[in-house]
Amino acid sequence: MILLHEFALSSASYRVRIALAMKGIAYQSRSYMLRRQEHRSAGYLAINPVGLVPCLEIDGLRLTQSLAIIDYLDQRFPEPRLIPAEPAERARVQAMAQTIACDIHPLDNLRVLHYLEAELGQDEAARNRWYAHWIHAGFEGLEAMARAEAAGPFLTGEAPGLFEICLVPQVFNARRFAVDLSPYGRLVEMADRALALSAFAKAAPA
Amino acid sequence: MILLHEFALSSASYRVRIALAMKGIAYQSRSYMLRRQEHRSAGYLAINPVGLVPCLEIDGLRLTQSLAIIDYLDQRFPEPRLIPAEPAERARVQAMAQTIACDIHPLDNLRVLHYLEAELGQDEAARNRWYAHWIHAGFEGLEAMARAEAAGPFLTGEAPGLFEICLVPQVFNARRFAVDLSPYGRLVEMADRALALSAFAKAAPA
Repeated sequence: MILLHEFALSSASYRVRIALAMKGIAYQSRSYMLRRQEHRSAGYLAINPVGLVPCLEIDGLRLTQSLAIIDYLDQRFPEPRLIPAEPAERARVQAMAQTIACDIHPLDNLRVLHYLEAELGQDEAARNRWYAHWIHAGFEGLEAMARAEAAGPFLTGEAPGLFEICLVPQVFNARRFAVDLSPYGRLVEMADRALALSAFAKAAPA
Repeated sequence: MILLHEFALSSASYRVRIALAMKGIAYQSRSYMLRRQEHRSAGYLAINPVGLVPCLEIDGLRLTQSLAIIDYLDQRFPEPRLIPAEPAERARVQAMAQTIACDIHPLDNLRVLHYLEAELGQDEAARNRWYAHWIHAGFEGLEAMARAEAAGPFLTGEAPGLFEICLVPQVFNARRFAVDLSPYGRLVEMADRALALSAFAKAAPA
């Protein structure tokens, strides 16, 4: 049995759901309410000592970190390929995916917004400015790269892959926070085109 | 010519310097003073539109994001191997490296500390609490994983690799900020053992 420990609105969980759906892998899901700190329970910490979602139980392993999980799935279930094999193309796709996964998302996730509120006394307006700031900081460069380098409807051509898997949840959450995405026409176009595909639609938060 | 655009104290630059040194790759370096916003200059944005260091010019490519750069170097110069090939071991090492690169470092880098000060008016004590908070949040779980799973002197056995490449700069910067690392004996032991190796020593900020 393949079991995904996750939270619907978590961008990192959403990425793994898309990858599983693209590869047509059946799995069960266990949901954790982050606001209730369910991912910090002793039960979950015994599964993932870092206490974050997602965690994927598969092949007798407990895999954590969305990008590492997707890399594993891409080797274990090679079709469709999500991360290019050719080194230069692989580096380009991974760099753009990591700009979302390392430079944007970690700053805007729920635990950080909670710290801003609870520890630093920042009101909702300040938290929303923070949220938008890091989206803009990353999307500005990504939009320039996508305009210059996208090979077709998606970054690497006719089919979406790791970059769109990271982009779609980030665009979804930017919209939840009413971030102005109008400067990022190429990114939004790629995200919406991916969202029209059944694997992406199926993985979206209900 | 191989050219690294970097900043000495940047953890992500430091990771790439270690990887280059471990593989014995000669390169030139161009340094950017982040406090003077040199990485936001038009000249550098033309090289890396995201405006962050590091960026490695190699093989006619401009590679960004430290983990993507290291993955590229590991394919292009396979010895010594930094990322395991076997899928389960690869996923484990990448997950622990990404816990640093995605969950700790992005919250504690210079641009975020600057935002806390300039935009949110947080004083040095509050910024230092922030810095330590995210180190502890990540290191607590990593220490448990390292104690349970480290295969030898280093995470995967007798030689350091991707995990130690991420760990050493994070420990270095935690010490700069006087974070109490005493609960993380296994992590500190691995970091110090790596630092005793010439490649790690050579890559350290002067």
